Amino acid sequence: MKFLTFGEIMLRLKPPYHERLFQGLMLEATFGGGEANVAVSLANYGMDVSYLTVLPKNAIGDACVQTIRKFGVDTSRIQRGAGRMGIYFLEPGANQLPSKVVYDREFSAIALAKPGDIDWDQAFSGIDWFHITGITPAISESAMLLSLQSVKAAKEKGITVSCDLNFRKNLWKYGKNAPEVMTELVKYVDVAVANEEDCQKSLGIKVDADVESGKLDVSKYEALTNQVLAQYPDMKLIAITLRESQSADINGWAGCLNDREQFYLSTRYEIRDIVDRVGGGDAFCSGLIYGLNAFTGKQDALEFAAAASCLKHSIIGDFNLVSIADVLNLMGGDASGRVQR
Amino acid sequence: MKFLTFGEIMLRLKPPYHERLFQGLMLEATFGGGEANVAVSLANYGMDVSYLTVLPKNAIGDACVQTIRKFGVDTSRIQRGAGRMGIYFLEPGANQLPSKVVYDREFSAIALAKPGDIDWDQAFSGIDWFHITGITPAISESAMLLSLQSVKAAKEKGITVSCDLNFRKNLWKYGKNAPEVMTELVKYVDVAVANEEDCQKSLGIKVDADVESGKLDVSKYEALTNQVLAQYPDMKLIAITLRESQSADINGWAGCLNDREQFYLSTRYEIRDIVDRVGGGDAFCSGLIYGLNAFTGKQDALEFAAAASCLKHSIIGDFNLVSIADVLNLMGGDASGRVQR
Amino acid sequence: MKFLTFGEIMLRLKPPYHERLFQGLMLEATFGGGEANVAVSLANYGMDVSYLTVLPKNAIGDACVQTIRKFGVDTSRIQRGAGRMGIYFLEPGANQLPSKVVYDREFSAIALAKPGDIDWDQAFSGIDWFHITGITPAISESAMLLSLQSVKAAKEKGITVSCDLNFRKNLWKYGKNAPEVMTELVKYVDVAVANEEDCQKSLGIKVDADVESGKLDVSKYEALTNQVLAQYPDMKLIAITLRESQSADINGWAGCLNDREQFYLSTRYEIRDIVDRVGGGDAFCSGLIYGLNAFTGKQDALEFAAAASCLKHSIIGDFNLVSIADVLNLMGGDASGRVQR
Amino acid sequence: MKFLTFGEIMLRLKPPYHERLFQGLMLEATFGGGEANVAVSLANYGMDVSYLTVLPKNAIGDACVQTIRKFGVDTSRIQRGAGRMGIYFLEPGANQLPSKVVYDREFSAIALAKPGDIDWDQAFSGIDWFHITGITPAISESAMLLSLQSVKAAKEKGITVSCDLNFRKNLWKYGKNAPEVMTELVKYVDVAVANEEDCQKSLGIKVDADVESGKLDVSKYEALTNQVLAQYPDMKLIAITLRESQSADINGWAGCLNDREQFYLSTRYEIRDIVDRVGGGDAFCSGLIYGLNAFTGKQDALEFAAAASCLKHSIIGDFNLVSIADVLNLMGGDASGRVQR
Amino acid sequence: MKFLTFGEIMLRLKPPYHERLFQGLMLEATFGGGEANVAVSLANYGMDVSYLTVLPKNAIGDACVQTIRKFGVDTSRIQRGAGRMGIYFLEPGANQLPSKVVYDREFSAIALAKPGDIDWDQAFSGIDWFHITGITPAISESAMLLSLQSVKAAKEKGITVSCDLNFRKNLWKYGKNAPEVMTELVKYVDVAVANEEDCQKSLGIKVDADVESGKLDVSKYEALTNQVLAQYPDMKLIAITLRESQSADINGWAGCLNDREQFYLSTRYEIRDIVDRVGGGDAFCSGLIYGLNAFTGKQDALEFAAAASCLKHSIIGDFNLVSIADVLNLMGGDASGRVQR
Amino acid sequence: MKFLTFGEIMLRLKPPYHERLFQGLMLEATFGGGEANVAVSLANYGMDVSYLTVLPKNAIGDACVQTIRKFGVDTSRIQRGAGRMGIYFLEPGANQLPSKVVYDREFSAIALAKPGDIDWDQAFSGIDWFHITGITPAISESAMLLSLQSVKAAKEKGITVSCDLNFRKNLWKYGKNAPEVMTELVKYVDVAVANEEDCQKSLGIKVDADVESGKLDVSKYEALTNQVLAQYPDMKLIAITLRESQSADINGWAGCLNDREQFYLSTRYEIRDIVDRVGGGDAFCSGLIYGLNAFTGKQDALEFAAAASCLKHSIIGDFNLVSIADVLNLMGGDASGRVQR
Repeated sequence: MKFLTFGEIMLRLKPPYHERLFQGLMLEATFGGGEANVAVSLANYGMDVSYLTVLPKNAIGDACVQTIRKFGVDTSRIQRGAGRMGIYFLEPGANQLPSKVVYDREFSAIALAKPGDIDWDQAFSGIDWFHITGITPAISESAMLLSLQSVKAAKEKGITVSCDLNFRKNLWKYGKNAPEVMTELVKYVDVAVANEEDCQKSLGIKVDADVESGKLDVSKYEALTNQVLAQYPDMKLIAITLRESQSADINGWAGCLNDREQFYLSTRYEIRDIVDRVGGGDAFCSGLIYGLNAFTGKQDALEFAAAASCLKHSIIGDFNLVSIADVLNLMGGDASGRVQR
Repeated sequence: MKFLTFGEIMLRLKPPYHERLFQGLMLEATFGGGEANVAVSLANYGMDVSYLTVLPKNAIGDACVQTIRKFGVDTSRIQRGAGRMGIYFLEPGANQLPSKVVYDREFSAIALAKPGDIDWDQAFSGIDWFHITGITPAISESAMLLSLQSVKAAKEKGITVSCDLNFRKNLWKYGKNAPEVMTELVKYVDVAVANEEDCQKSLGIKVDADVESGKLDVSKYEALTNQVLAQYPDMKLIAITLRESQSADINGWAGCLNDREQFYLSTRYEIRDIVDRVGGGDAFCSGLIYGLNAFTGKQDALEFAAAASCLKHSIIGDFNLVSIADVLNLMGGDASGRVQR
Repeated sequence: MKFLTFGEIMLRLKPPYHERLFQGLMLEATFGGGEANVAVSLANYGMDVSYLTVLPKNAIGDACVQTIRKFGVDTSRIQRGAGRMGIYFLEPGANQLPSKVVYDREFSAIALAKPGDIDWDQAFSGIDWFHITGITPAISESAMLLSLQSVKAAKEKGITVSCDLNFRKNLWKYGKNAPEVMTELVKYVDVAVANEEDCQKSLGIKVDADVESGKLDVSKYEALTNQVLAQYPDMKLIAITLRESQSADINGWAGCLNDREQFYLSTRYEIRDIVDRVGGGDAFCSGLIYGLNAFTGKQDALEFAAAASCLKHSIIGDFNLVSIADVLNLMGGDASGRVQR
Repeated sequence: MKFLTFGEIMLRLKPPYHERLFQGLMLEATFGGGEANVAVSLANYGMDVSYLTVLPKNAIGDACVQTIRKFGVDTSRIQRGAGRMGIYFLEPGANQLPSKVVYDREFSAIALAKPGDIDWDQAFSGIDWFHITGITPAISESAMLLSLQSVKAAKEKGITVSCDLNFRKNLWKYGKNAPEVMTELVKYVDVAVANEEDCQKSLGIKVDADVESGKLDVSKYEALTNQVLAQYPDMKLIAITLRESQSADINGWAGCLNDREQFYLSTRYEIRDIVDRVGGGDAFCSGLIYGLNAFTGKQDALEFAAAASCLKHSIIGDFNLVSIADVLNLMGGDASGRVQR
Repeated sequence: MKFLTFGEIMLRLKPPYHERLFQGLMLEATFGGGEANVAVSLANYGMDVSYLTVLPKNAIGDACVQTIRKFGVDTSRIQRGAGRMGIYFLEPGANQLPSKVVYDREFSAIALAKPGDIDWDQAFSGIDWFHITGITPAISESAMLLSLQSVKAAKEKGITVSCDLNFRKNLWKYGKNAPEVMTELVKYVDVAVANEEDCQKSLGIKVDADVESGKLDVSKYEALTNQVLAQYPDMKLIAITLRESQSADINGWAGCLNDREQFYLSTRYEIRDIVDRVGGGDAFCSGLIYGLNAFTGKQDALEFAAAASCLKHSIIGDFNLVSIADVLNLMGGDASGRVQR
Repeated sequence: MKFLTFGEIMLRLKPPYHERLFQGLMLEATFGGGEANVAVSLANYGMDVSYLTVLPKNAIGDACVQTIRKFGVDTSRIQRGAGRMGIYFLEPGANQLPSKVVYDREFSAIALAKPGDIDWDQAFSGIDWFHITGITPAISESAMLLSLQSVKAAKEKGITVSCDLNFRKNLWKYGKNAPEVMTELVKYVDVAVANEEDCQKSLGIKVDADVESGKLDVSKYEALTNQVLAQYPDMKLIAITLRESQSADINGWAGCLNDREQFYLSTRYEIRDIVDRVGGGDAFCSGLIYGLNAFTGKQDALEFAAAASCLKHSIIGDFNLVSIADVLNLMGGDASGRVQR
């Protein structure tokens, strides 16, 4: 089983610890982006995974390739082109103060890449599973066209397609809104991942739940997933992440999954000292993709996804640098955090 | 509306993260002090504010001026004189271990400044609102005399005077105790801010509440504020900050306000992962001053103060580096800490 | 009263803050080990304490001696010999993710030290109290022989012997298991300290309590301590640490003590933002040893131990760098964490 | 005398010390750009100086304004507009390894600003001296048009215009080459600063000197400056910086000046442990502008410029954070570097 | 052309900047070792290179694999086995104070690996060029046996063998001295690299040159290389690095090469602000191996090696993170260190 | 032989690397002062040395004691009293830019200590050699009185007295000038150390040499030392440090010594990349004191002092953390800086 993920990776600049942006002299410089995060996580679980993106031809692009390769991802399909490396600045929140992202990702190499720039036959050669997100079609018209090309090509070749709907309200600035594009793209998706807001803002499917309140009514999520599955007959299953934001440090976290046969709900985790929650959804996606391939039961796959992404909240950076053993330990019920020596 | 604040600013030396003093090689070096913190915060809210202090004529004083100016405070009234820059060392606590302040502020330039060194006509030129605290009269006899001069001069000129009573038990070493001075100074104050201990230790007015317990009986605060207002007939309103210290990391936080017409109580915030609580009271003061000038209702002013100072607990350093939008977001009820992107 | 502790000290390498091992360029380099931690803590409380170990003859060993001496421990009995400095890597956990220790302590100077290398008459000259742990006999056969020699010699000389049973499952690799050795060694112990797992794994005495659950049934600990005391007639008292691991950040913490006359239970502390829990048990031991010598009542001694070790969880590194005043303040009931200035 | 400088300021990201880009987790984040560097330096010398640029409406732009204001520059004329903050990555060299700049400055707010976006009457209100560089017209066609507008408007208003020719070969990508624009722009310049390469690449005027060799034939510079002055009859004087690059750490440094009446040559400085040479030319410009206004003799002005910019090589960041006293000390012949205490 | 290098890689722990070991809290943690350094450098030049070593089965070993892979080296042949990761501590020198290495590399996984643990048929599958050093046979008897096995197997398979003699006086502790082993091993070497001391201490061939003086008499090196070539008839060429140590910061650096047909001498570089000289010899080796494969002339190959290794002295860490373009630039004569932008 | 040194130790605050004061968030916090530096250095050479000072009763004083004790100095004679810890800020220079010291040492505990506060019988108990400097009498009138008491008491007890004249022009502010005091104090000195400026400014003895030029005429120093010895008949010998300041990074360094029988001149060292020159003179003093006690010949003692203090310039902080072996290696002529492994 060989995996391919496709999308944008950015340079992430964050002040250390809880400093404000530019309060001190230093910024932590890492790389991250939804699809790259999934690729790194799959490689980290021992999967054979390739990552496709377009990077600038400069030292920043080179460093990005090295970072991805470090974690065992195949970088041979990465293309280098005109345009810049997208950047996002992350100012860390705490308590009632939210973390803030300042995007500086316009005119990136992948945003400038046009249909024709990527040879999908080559890109998909040997690939069994393809992962994309709702971010790529949001960054530019040409990236949207590439995204649609990619899922259609994958579908034609019989490749399983997974997609994290991932609605980003500050993108989608090129003239289309999210539902115009995503309702088309999702037709080609076998495995969908989303949160409640994604369903509503990307697909226009709304459940009567208050995502801002920090308290979730899980029962309504079966209805929501049924609605999505009804609307997209080729979709095999959909998983929803359930985040209850009580503060920047304290979140409830769980997931549910509907495979048309059954509705599954994961263990709920209370995370009380969040170290870094960016990439939590990506950690869920990669956990789910791994789980669906490694376990026979859907409950196990979902529990792996939930436990893996719960652990992400304790890791600095976008990448979920936990081992299978870490996840299995938590899945097995040990959330005690006792020192392992 | 132009504001002036007057008092001491110190060099603040704190080990990084949770290190003990001198456990590692490095100390975080910032600047802070009650009245400067208020000035920076007001400037940060877009107010026209000037800060008056006396600084030494050396590179440390120069750097201090730069830091204040960086945040948009008018530094043109700052005087340079004999004496040193006061310093405070801050060792961070956690859980049951309290943070500790070691003062090294004796013989500072402002402590040595004498009546006559400051021309109050010049200092108050164009000023509408003057802010002082109970710290300045505590540092030396001459600073006490300057403090009394300042509020009297302000009053004569029809300038609104606000004062944070701010009792500091390790100061007041020059021969007077706090009530001897503060009961006189407060006569000239229009807007007072205090906590329960300040009322008792500075004004000798006691409410039967246990400030150490971490649990506060709010009902008693109406009585307390009524007592203060009864004793100081020119005082227009008094606000009290309500801190419930459960541990170095977990505090309840709220405020109340009595304007002789009504007693207002703010939303109570539970802060569970305090990043830095020094300057919390100053953030309340500046929030209140801003709120009283920006909103028509006292409840709104109080809520702004409470929300602004709640957020301070998530910011490193004395200065409350949050935006009006951050405060309004929390006032509007969003304490979820969800990533803003 | 002069104290001696004997055992291994290691170089401790930990990434800063919550970084994964080798995620950044830097590692925090400190030193620590059970018996050294106890010595530093006793010196910190003003006790006259000497530390005995074997260190390599190189710059790493020199730095280790300096570090111990810095805190006022007498280092004149430390020997220098063949072998290396043991190292442990510590990867910090958070929430459901446990901290992890990677040991690199094989072939250390103390593991290679053989009976005959230490002259116990000299080592014990002037000593009244000797402290050892269950770690030293676990590291090598020769270290085990030295450990048995030490307690026998101490006993003969009428020196009080305290021992932290400290079971480490990844040691004991030289051919003996823990109970084979520890049941012998404990015969010479006057004051034993352990947790539930230590009693079971080191002495084979089991109480029906679930140490992994994070919830402890205190009542069962009286039975456990009675069992141990019954089996070891020369043991004067045993104290048990009670840790409830709810997560890597949140632990309940208390201790109990049985002196054959009475069963004492300490205050229970809820620690909600653990900074560093390594060395918590050692902080309990040193607090208890100090308490037994400084207070007349056992309850006070136990409370000192519990409060001291509670505070350790807020300190970076193995050493419990808190003052007697800090501990007495918490023992006195002030867990409010209010800034001390 | 009030000064205005106009141009782009960028976020500068440099790894600490001599690390490669992304070798460690951290990047030093400062701000810098030719015209901003000149403004900060003039403010630092106590001059009344305003800086004009266009910055994005986000937290990065806010931080940039704060940084400029910190040093006493008037930021009230800065405009906020569409587009991003330009960035440059700086990888430090040493010995034979050159420092490298990776530009990420396309689509910056100032590059997108169009004629009409800046009201030159307002911008020049109260201004006596205007400084611009050859970088601004190189970044985009619209910025070139603004640049030409600016010098023409300044000239009309009788404002002295200074210009650092500053040729950058990796800019000029919008369809014009440097001489096409610069030969026009320089017509309006009273005081020009350049190095040999600037003269050749920007104005097409070549002197037969080998700038790469690290050894300069000063005598040829009189001819070069005469040529420039001959070609631009309104130019009052031109100064040339003379850098002999022996390695990334060791440079010779001097300047010369031709005011049509006399040719002046400054003291030559040997700088053997360069800390940061970026901004050296800007430090010369600001030193010269200060010197021409502060001294009556041209030799003094030139010596001030040379000494000030010599000292810049010992300062981290783009800004020349030295005092007038530092410069006068070096001008006075004390290059001994003895500790001042 | 596919390359294989074989040897030990260690964790390298160095205090930042010029700190003494344990002067501050932090150590820079990187990885390095002669043969790994060569592999990383070849990968960096775009070569297809695999690295063979034995690493422990723990998180330190995992991080090491990631680091090697990051730079594009094939890590699939790396074996995991019993034993630890070797460590070396590096205390940086300056001026007259030498840098110091404290080895903690005994009992490493590769030192414990025995003949039979590595399947040389598999290891050499597809390999054209094999690189080894004189360090591996010095670390343990079994590693010596593996080293001899490796060169014999390579020779049999017609693989080109290169060897850096690399004498280390603090190794060779298992009962053999260097010449006993190296005179045998070198029989199988096609391309030898050494410095003067290596020839003498490893092969017993002495030239009358004073390596400590900082001044080298190049003429004697032709004689030395002739002697070596005479003694080892299968050796095709030998290159010698010529380091003149004037101080810890200032070295002369050059190389020479004798291919039995001609004696070549490279450009001599004066390096005056050494950033990190560890790995300089490895950078020469990898530069030479690249050069011999990329250029037709031996002079070019030697110049590439000399320039590449000259640049290494400006790079932190063992790895020579420079590009082919950097090296060609210096080979082309540009040692000016001018900022590239 | 037991040594005692007496004087002030300060907290030293320096920005990292080459940052300006307050350019970044961090300051390096170490401790240092002439007499403490000598004590640490002597302890470092294995001498039995005690350090006497007066420190404040707070956490800063505690940390200072720990730091001194770490290096093996006996701290049992240190007194704690009223007053603060003196501080000095150090801004690092480079090239032509001098390092700058900002003193904040007024009102320190030792400056406030009065005659009677120190029991000289107790202080000198068991002491054979006493070291003082010209700094202590410069800080306050009472410290001057204590200084005079100390040397008289020492002399009476037959203790050898050494003194580093150490003129500091920014001290001596209490009403006496240096010669008024020092000409008296030096009468009791057996071993004097000074530089040319000290002789002139402290004793009024001038040699016609230009200390600012960076070039020293050694021949004149014999005359100078003869003059001093003539004037102080009880002085047994005087040593002079010879610093040629070419820049902040490049100094020539040597020493000379006159013992009334012979004039000795040490090797001259060229230090070209100074890491930290503060404490260089103290390193010379401690090297000389060690040398006079360890070697029979004066030339050896002087060479040890010169080599030891040469090496200090490569060490961060006031303390000369080099070993006897390091010094002997340099004395032996090896200034090559070759890596020791």
